[in-house]
Amino acid sequence: MADSTPVVGIVLGSGSDREVMEAARSVLEEFGVPCEMTVASAHRSPERAAAYARGAAGRGLKVLIAGAGMAAHLAGVLAAHTTLPVVGVPLAGSPLQGLDALLSTVQMPPGVPVATVALGAAGARNAAILAVQILALSDPRLAERLEAHKAAMAAAVERQAEELAS
Amino acid sequence: MADSTPVVGIVLGSGSDREVMEAARSVLEEFGVPCEMTVASAHRSPERAAAYARGAAGRGLKVLIAGAGMAAHLAGVLAAHTTLPVVGVPLAGSPLQGLDALLSTVQMPPGVPVATVALGAAGARNAAILAVQILALSDPRLAERLEAHKAAMAAAVERQAEELAS
Amino acid sequence: MADSTPVVGIVLGSGSDREVMEAARSVLEEFGVPCEMTVASAHRSPERAAAYARGAAGRGLKVLIAGAGMAAHLAGVLAAHTTLPVVGVPLAGSPLQGLDALLSTVQMPPGVPVATVALGAAGARNAAILAVQILALSDPRLAERLEAHKAAMAAAVERQAEELAS
Amino acid sequence: MADSTPVVGIVLGSGSDREVMEAARSVLEEFGVPCEMTVASAHRSPERAAAYARGAAGRGLKVLIAGAGMAAHLAGVLAAHTTLPVVGVPLAGSPLQGLDALLSTVQMPPGVPVATVALGAAGARNAAILAVQILALSDPRLAERLEAHKAAMAAAVERQAEELAS
Amino acid sequence: MADSTPVVGIVLGSGSDREVMEAARSVLEEFGVPCEMTVASAHRSPERAAAYARGAAGRGLKVLIAGAGMAAHLAGVLAAHTTLPVVGVPLAGSPLQGLDALLSTVQMPPGVPVATVALGAAGARNAAILAVQILALSDPRLAERLEAHKAAMAAAVERQAEELAS
Amino acid sequence: MADSTPVVGIVLGSGSDREVMEAARSVLEEFGVPCEMTVASAHRSPERAAAYARGAAGRGLKVLIAGAGMAAHLAGVLAAHTTLPVVGVPLAGSPLQGLDALLSTVQMPPGVPVATVALGAAGARNAAILAVQILALSDPRLAERLEAHKAAMAAAVERQAEELAS
Amino acid sequence: MADSTPVVGIVLGSGSDREVMEAARSVLEEFGVPCEMTVASAHRSPERAAAYARGAAGRGLKVLIAGAGMAAHLAGVLAAHTTLPVVGVPLAGSPLQGLDALLSTVQMPPGVPVATVALGAAGARNAAILAVQILALSDPRLAERLEAHKAAMAAAVERQAEELAS
Amino acid sequence: MADSTPVVGIVLGSGSDREVMEAARSVLEEFGVPCEMTVASAHRSPERAAAYARGAAGRGLKVLIAGAGMAAHLAGVLAAHTTLPVVGVPLAGSPLQGLDALLSTVQMPPGVPVATVALGAAGARNAAILAVQILALSDPRLAERLEAHKAAMAAAVERQAEELAS
Repeated sequence: MADSTPVVGIVLGSGSDREVMEAARSVLEEFGVPCEMTVASAHRSPERAAAYARGAAGRGLKVLIAGAGMAAHLAGVLAAHTTLPVVGVPLAGSPLQGLDALLSTVQMPPGVPVATVALGAAGARNAAILAVQILALSDPRLAERLEAHKAAMAAAVERQAEELAS
Repeated sequence: MADSTPVVGIVLGSGSDREVMEAARSVLEEFGVPCEMTVASAHRSPERAAAYARGAAGRGLKVLIAGAGMAAHLAGVLAAHTTLPVVGVPLAGSPLQGLDALLSTVQMPPGVPVATVALGAAGARNAAILAVQILALSDPRLAERLEAHKAAMAAAVERQAEELAS
Repeated sequence: MADSTPVVGIVLGSGSDREVMEAARSVLEEFGVPCEMTVASAHRSPERAAAYARGAAGRGLKVLIAGAGMAAHLAGVLAAHTTLPVVGVPLAGSPLQGLDALLSTVQMPPGVPVATVALGAAGARNAAILAVQILALSDPRLAERLEAHKAAMAAAVERQAEELAS
Repeated sequence: MADSTPVVGIVLGSGSDREVMEAARSVLEEFGVPCEMTVASAHRSPERAAAYARGAAGRGLKVLIAGAGMAAHLAGVLAAHTTLPVVGVPLAGSPLQGLDALLSTVQMPPGVPVATVALGAAGARNAAILAVQILALSDPRLAERLEAHKAAMAAAVERQAEELAS
Repeated sequence: MADSTPVVGIVLGSGSDREVMEAARSVLEEFGVPCEMTVASAHRSPERAAAYARGAAGRGLKVLIAGAGMAAHLAGVLAAHTTLPVVGVPLAGSPLQGLDALLSTVQMPPGVPVATVALGAAGARNAAILAVQILALSDPRLAERLEAHKAAMAAAVERQAEELAS
Repeated sequence: MADSTPVVGIVLGSGSDREVMEAARSVLEEFGVPCEMTVASAHRSPERAAAYARGAAGRGLKVLIAGAGMAAHLAGVLAAHTTLPVVGVPLAGSPLQGLDALLSTVQMPPGVPVATVALGAAGARNAAILAVQILALSDPRLAERLEAHKAAMAAAVERQAEELAS
Repeated sequence: MADSTPVVGIVLGSGSDREVMEAARSVLEEFGVPCEMTVASAHRSPERAAAYARGAAGRGLKVLIAGAGMAAHLAGVLAAHTTLPVVGVPLAGSPLQGLDALLSTVQMPPGVPVATVALGAAGARNAAILAVQILALSDPRLAERLEAHKAAMAAAVERQAEELAS
Repeated sequence: MADSTPVVGIVLGSGSDREVMEAARSVLEEFGVPCEMTVASAHRSPERAAAYARGAAGRGLKVLIAGAGMAAHLAGVLAAHTTLPVVGVPLAGSPLQGLDALLSTVQMPPGVPVATVALGAAGARNAAILAVQILALSDPRLAERLEAHKAAMAAAVERQAEELAS
């Protein structure tokens, strides 16, 4: 992982999902995990989405992260075409505020899982951390960084508590 | 339409969806519309689903009907691979009682519509009637049968009312 | 379809639904499909709605598109009075954010289908594409335009991906 | 109200709704309010539903009660064609357990109210009591019976409490 | 109804509900129905709410309209203390956007109905029209005004359609 | 608390709620907390419910537990008439499976809280434990029993784990 | 309670929840109940949350109030580690508008209750009043203040009614 | 992975969740992945749950799978105490049919992800497949088995389609 060959692929269902999904890229960069970001709609460019998923493992990708809204099929379509773990981030842009995206992402039928995280930016961030947790199983340095990250979160809570108390 | 070349393709997300989707086939047979029924999972056999949709128009199919439950992506996947009208029947087999299948089917992003009908058997029946309505635009005999069907429904209501009154 | 006799009728439940439903008209114009747009409330002007639906086929209309919010009965009322395919666009203006309109439009009882599409502007756009798909079954030029539209969508995704990569 | 000319019309969206809606008829009979029960589907027999509503006031009906499930438009259709008060009973037969019927009945647009009561048998019973409350405004004997009914309900609760205590 | 003794009582669960509920008062004034408006919280002033309901019939009130949000018990509490018809307007001020108020208002147990109308301002307006429909059963002038109102609504739709067509 | 003067009052909205609410009584008896159980409907016997709540503190009751379904107003009505803590148990008997009871119980307006616990039997049991926790603040023996109960729960989990492992 | 040793502990899941939860502190100060406020995330600082709950009773705290959003586990985690009553305030910051926080807080399994109040600021205020109600069981001055608070709320409603009438 | 040291830990929130979660164990055994199954309630045995998660990595576990219902905090609690990937299976045993468990599991705050899969048995099965996908990143034999599993699923769909056609 010293070089910059991407090991995580972040796929957006639409170019307009970029802003919220940048949270995933930031976290991966923070952890030093090389990643790439692309656009591949399950519905408007199904061949591209399928091809991306089918080629992912061969290109060295280890985890795919898919962010999509509405009837969010992107993560499921990727998962149908690869055996790599696929993390789904349901996005909340529709009038139904993401309930549609959440159910479309998480309720996968037996045989083809999608690892679904929270709606929106919180989920984008957590998708990246989940990817790091997966990669850390065979990369002790990432495992250490995750421990440090966990400690830093706890310390940040302590600081918030101190500020509140003072 | 005198011969039996199928013009409507009914696709099941799983063999276990057959019973509820037979309602669609019955209606099509009632109207004398040749149809075929197959299985093609969006997730477990994505190539098959895509191939079916891509080949549908060439084989003479005019309308596709897809029945699926949970994160019901089947109709959307078919619609991604064809410009034929695709009718989606959300099935209600999960603990969430079909809300997942409904939202996964109907909330398609701009550019790739799925004509969604009601949950379960009512929807299976209506999917077939919708297919007949579409085909009837260029088949006056089907249009007549639809008029007769509409009149028969109204007459059935009259009979129910008479029974209630007697 | 060379002349301008409308073949698609867009019906608004209220004049205030015009803005979101203009997306349907734009798409139809893009595809060169003559259409008309009118207002006919299922509740405030039920005779008008019924008369519109009953006269639609006779005036040469092939597909009706109905956009309505709240207890959105308009598409269902039209479908009750015609055997033409009726596409329903649930609008999301109420405090319940369209869940009411969605369920009121899609959950039609057996015998009278409404082809329901997504909530709001995405649905308005898709309703028009669905209408074009239906009309294209007997109009090869429309079928070609749909293929071109599909290719254009895929190309647009490619461009977005390239922009992201650069 | 001494004679048996019906003053309340109970309308079922389908003959299959009869069992649950009999609760309304029982209550009206208990209060000595003449009623009639019929079937008129908003979708399968729209002319009948409209005609029933338009003729209701002329035939001496004072209140209409409509019971329907799924995209329950019946009460709304009746209300569109009469200025009599219309009471809607959403029925819970679909996979969505009546949420569809409830929202379709209650979320009427400004100008055309439906007096919606609870889902299912509880609502059927309450629809009848509401009708009696409306009729009692100009019938002191009904007002007395309502008072007696209210007292009887309170007394029944007292008895339940005594049984529990003993 | 020539004099100004109120026949409809509008009760607000909180002074802050006034703005949305003024729609009810406007409609009643439009129809020439004398009304009064007051505040009586089911939870913060339960005695006042109960006393208001118990005294309502004696003071000449015929219909009560209650507007409340969150766990909207006001209409139910009024209905518990009177046999007059009570119309409930669920208000949508909470994070759950009125689903809480709707279910709290409509799902009354057998024996004590609340005539529930739509959420928010649409419901406030419809509550008043429903009250007029109830009063019109024994007031032919109100019945005429309701007919005129219905015709005016239909005419307004026609005008909107004409504007759209021009 | 040595004698048997009740300190917790369990109130049922209906005699039919008894079975599920017996779980609350069992827990209180297990902890040696004297309690009473009665029926008092917020809607069918509002005076009784109000009187019960107003007299509760004077009779030595410390905590009220209310179990009710549908538009579950009982806990809120009790809370409106007492300053004792009121615990609400939403019951799941309606077609909406308790979502109505849950929102009607928990979404109380500012000023009048109801301590809401889980739906159904789990909630009935937890309502009693919560009541014991409240009483234990001034009764060290109850506090000890709560500690023992907590330890017993943890031990039961250990036993389940051992059984699974063996 | 004459001195200022805190008897109520308000715990925030995040420093960003402070603003809405200040409503709880204000109410407690109004009633003269000493309290403390701190931050302890169930997920980012689980040891801190557990330690806080385990030490709470020993430090003289009587009631814990936890405010958290999303998958709001904070109240449940505190309740797992103490036998003090824990009041949960679900916060509505996520796209699902607090439905996630509400269900995560209230649906506790048998054995470990959380006293759940309304979503957001209304709930924060009510959590404090519930805490005062609990403390008032052994503090007659607090009981008096609660009576005064209840009277003041009723009087405020009266004033609102008078303003409306004038 | 030749020996039988468990690499996946399946944790049940309650012994009663065993039946549905056995689907996870079956899948892992099918793939030859050594696993262990235990019980550790987030609420009734929080120390055990925390200790299990803290010790998991040290004992050689690579992935944790947690199955729990209602306010399903188990997966979140495990994730709070480990940096291993945690897969959450929401279980549908409550009246709300798993919506509570789903939202409690998936809506984790930023920093602590849970990889959430579908409700109930489908999710239990998919949790195991997801675990295998994660382990396969550093175990080529598992990757091959996943490919074979994918091919077998597609073949099974083909067979279902053939049966339907014959």
